[in-house]
Amino acid sequence: MPKRRGGAATGASAEDGSAASSGKAPRTDRGRRTLRAILDAAAIEFGEKGFHEGSISGITRRAGVALGSFYTYFDSKDAVFRALVRDMSGQVRDHVAPALRAADHQIAAERAGLEQFIAFVRQHKEIYRIIDEAEFVDPESFRQHYATTAERIRTRLAAASQRGELREGLSEVHAWAIMGMNVFLGLRYGVWQEDKTPEAIADTVAEMLKDGLARR
Amino acid sequence: MPKRRGGAATGASAEDGSAASSGKAPRTDRGRRTLRAILDAAAIEFGEKGFHEGSISGITRRAGVALGSFYTYFDSKDAVFRALVRDMSGQVRDHVAPALRAADHQIAAERAGLEQFIAFVRQHKEIYRIIDEAEFVDPESFRQHYATTAERIRTRLAAASQRGELREGLSEVHAWAIMGMNVFLGLRYGVWQEDKTPEAIADTVAEMLKDGLARR
Repeated sequence: MPKRRGGAATGASAEDGSAASSGKAPRTDRGRRTLRAILDAAAIEFGEKGFHEGSISGITRRAGVALGSFYTYFDSKDAVFRALVRDMSGQVRDHVAPALRAADHQIAAERAGLEQFIAFVRQHKEIYRIIDEAEFVDPESFRQHYATTAERIRTRLAAASQRGELREGLSEVHAWAIMGMNVFLGLRYGVWQEDKTPEAIADTVAEMLKDGLARR
Repeated sequence: MPKRRGGAATGASAEDGSAASSGKAPRTDRGRRTLRAILDAAAIEFGEKGFHEGSISGITRRAGVALGSFYTYFDSKDAVFRALVRDMSGQVRDHVAPALRAADHQIAAERAGLEQFIAFVRQHKEIYRIIDEAEFVDPESFRQHYATTAERIRTRLAAASQRGELREGLSEVHAWAIMGMNVFLGLRYGVWQEDKTPEAIADTVAEMLKDGLARR
């Protein structure tokens, strides 16, 4: 049965091992666990030190793997950074997807997606520094992250229009607007200061998305 | 007479010369023109090369001023970068303010502000690279730029609620949501690709801000 909402798989899962450099995908569960450990360690290394100060040896030390294991899966520091951006993009998508699917109306879905996103950011504050640094270190990854995220939002808005939950004529502009809102709310209330609950923020935004801001 | 909408001056104007390092503010019109030329040249230098590759000599060459003139106004490359972020923040504010003030309803004001912002970005695409790089080069400037922009939006939303144009209860969350929308729409349709007019984008967003997205 096709999933009703937000269920379209777009690109590789964060868990399928395709993050490795070309020809280096792990073939065993153990290999996939090692790859996962390297990516998680890379998130901490680059999140703390940034790309230029971060090092492969810092990553392998944090991951508790030998330097040779790193090169089993990745060609270079650039390659693991590129893989990390794609992996984090996938992790956000996978973390938010169940809440999007479970909602019974697209406004509720957007609400739940934002709530889950802010909660995720609080547990993974490094995601901002890493994706933002991609603009300079690997512009193509940066672009890819936002282009695919916006396209995913556009697709789910169009489907909700078709189901009659949202009005007609929703476009890429709406998708970019919603993505921008979510990214900045995640920065402010996820990374900078946790002075409001994700629930309260999501409620506020859902009300705005539902009825707008004009006085009635 | 107090201005009706969006007229609150917040911080220094982009044109008052206060961009110079402490104790180095120009005292003559000629000095202010030189300072302006240095800031404009710095925008091009850092916009093209980034902070690390950009140089003071590159800035003075582009500005057509002597190296000594640079040090008349700035202490260092860090100082001119910091001043540039603040100056660009002020330029955006000053460019958008007249459109905000001229509108006869806050939805129309937000619409006009976004239209002007996208048009401004198309003429100053380097603003994204510079402000985004500030996150790494000078985090305090980065934070300051978004915190003051959000506060300015929050203030104008609250005033519009009071005038009865927008509903009550608008908060910092709404301000960050609107700022995020605008920043990402500027990135997509100002920097990446100019495949929609600023007018059309602003119309779409104004409709969303006015009535929301739910089917009626």
